[in-house]
Amino acid sequence: VNIGLIGYGGVGKAFIDLLNEKNIKWKVRYILKSDGAIIDKEGLDLDEIKRFQDNIKLHKNWIDGAGFEDIIDIDIDFLVELTPTNMETGEPAISYIRESLKRGINIVTGNKGPILKDYRGLKRLAEKNKVNIGIGCTVGGALPSISGGLIDCAGANIESMEAILNGTTNYILDQMEEGEKTYEETLKEAQELGIAESNPTMDVKGYDTAIKMTILANVLMNENISLEEVQLECIDKVTVSDIKNARMRDCKIKLLGRIYKDNEKVKIQVGPEEIDKSHPLYSVEGKNKGIYYRTDTLGDITIIGGASGTMNAAASILRDIIFLNSQYVIGNTK
Amino acid sequence: VNIGLIGYGGVGKAFIDLLNEKNIKWKVRYILKSDGAIIDKEGLDLDEIKRFQDNIKLHKNWIDGAGFEDIIDIDIDFLVELTPTNMETGEPAISYIRESLKRGINIVTGNKGPILKDYRGLKRLAEKNKVNIGIGCTVGGALPSISGGLIDCAGANIESMEAILNGTTNYILDQMEEGEKTYEETLKEAQELGIAESNPTMDVKGYDTAIKMTILANVLMNENISLEEVQLECIDKVTVSDIKNARMRDCKIKLLGRIYKDNEKVKIQVGPEEIDKSHPLYSVEGKNKGIYYRTDTLGDITIIGGASGTMNAAASILRDIIFLNSQYVIGNTK
Repeated sequence: VNIGLIGYGGVGKAFIDLLNEKNIKWKVRYILKSDGAIIDKEGLDLDEIKRFQDNIKLHKNWIDGAGFEDIIDIDIDFLVELTPTNMETGEPAISYIRESLKRGINIVTGNKGPILKDYRGLKRLAEKNKVNIGIGCTVGGALPSISGGLIDCAGANIESMEAILNGTTNYILDQMEEGEKTYEETLKEAQELGIAESNPTMDVKGYDTAIKMTILANVLMNENISLEEVQLECIDKVTVSDIKNARMRDCKIKLLGRIYKDNEKVKIQVGPEEIDKSHPLYSVEGKNKGIYYRTDTLGDITIIGGASGTMNAAASILRDIIFLNSQYVIGNTK
Repeated sequence: VNIGLIGYGGVGKAFIDLLNEKNIKWKVRYILKSDGAIIDKEGLDLDEIKRFQDNIKLHKNWIDGAGFEDIIDIDIDFLVELTPTNMETGEPAISYIRESLKRGINIVTGNKGPILKDYRGLKRLAEKNKVNIGIGCTVGGALPSISGGLIDCAGANIESMEAILNGTTNYILDQMEEGEKTYEETLKEAQELGIAESNPTMDVKGYDTAIKMTILANVLMNENISLEEVQLECIDKVTVSDIKNARMRDCKIKLLGRIYKDNEKVKIQVGPEEIDKSHPLYSVEGKNKGIYYRTDTLGDITIIGGASGTMNAAASILRDIIFLNSQYVIGNTK
């Protein structure tokens, strides 16, 4: 397997580490960053790359200022696309992905922007060029939410989905319960601990969950829903007494994403909800994640877990490559 | 997709129903029973088949006494193998499967016997002939325990697995708790309700779980363990006071299958175990099933659910065909 990597942040570095640690003998032919690239058509020495760490510019193959146009014609089977995400335009990732698909290169990405923006178009382009797009990393990372829907539920109709997909809000709600502190106090603490970002809007306003649910609906239920259509409520209105009252009823408050059918129209709703002990996601705590699919012929299927972290996100990239690559083991001469 | 079906019991009939209900336009070229077959190389009219139900011998295409030799040369992509299982020899299924693999036919089966007997040999034969074997139905039916391990955990090492895979024993243990009745009384009631079989050995002695765990270890951890190596303890020693004592500690007793490494050697253990609230399978009740994978790079992943019944088992057969067939969509001219 020949690989190209665009984006060399936390997950990109963890991905190279993972190939090293697992002794996977794939060839990484280039690593493209925003300000240059290292290229070796015989495959980079990954042990050596690791030794350079953040000083990758000191690598003998570093080409300062090299850009996408310098690597696009290098023959690879998989482009691992891990540039910073842009939810409005999907750029520059979406252009990288489109150009690569046109050249018959499979894509594996952890980048929500392009998938949110135009999954349908990218999928069509991939099919036209007989390649595939792996997006497991975009929804929950190590939690197999995409393969869970595509493979584990294959042949069944997914009637609805519920999911807890945002670790930060899950943590804040847990801590509000434990410490009996207000939302504002708990958020501040979480920010100090580095669990919540200094601008926590994406997480606490529910956008992160809304984006993930939109991707799930579009990918697993073949919809074409935009983020603006999601009914969104954020967790900052949840009070300690709400949580206490829920606990008295043996319930918990969670930031729940919900995809459901309303007169055959698929709708998405994200907001704090009280769930009781019998709910399949009741046990999802802290940084844990979970998804619950209701299907017609396979019954209810719930998947919980998948660790959170750059290494685990990288492992979900690796999972997609191995899965998509197995499609070539059988019946393809490539 | 061209299909042949061997075995026309509950799951076989439900599979034909499912193709009808879901309006899937695959061609079923034959249905082989133990005493004859119906064959139509243009594809059987499945609506018509359904109307015949148990009187399939009255179908105009019925060939009394037809056997495997009469259908083996019919060109199909997938053999759906659903004959009654034989745990000792794997026959006749294992011969049907071997002959079909040699002819480049993919197999999807719900038959534990051949998989228990010689998964490694069958897999090798499949690879040699560039086809595949779908066995999702053999371990938990609609619960995606096999795809969960193969796809959702792809690229990670599965370090251990724990699972609750037998509905009958789960039901008996639940009822002993609820009704405060002895094992013998509860078993008798379950037999009267048709939940436990008149010869309950397979379930209550733990053989059913042991067989499923053996298949999981051999398929997902590339082992070659035989049923005799499983450490087996059955549930008939569990008393009502054991269950009461567990409940006082907020614990439950479950028939748990466990695959673990002991000095790098993979071992399997099946028996009643007390699990506490924090255990990922604590919520698995009644006919529900669940499996918990501990992995190195994707963290802990738990899958719970998948309805029990002939239709749901048939849906797991359909799931395997769709999944394996998608491997042909890309990169194969077939």
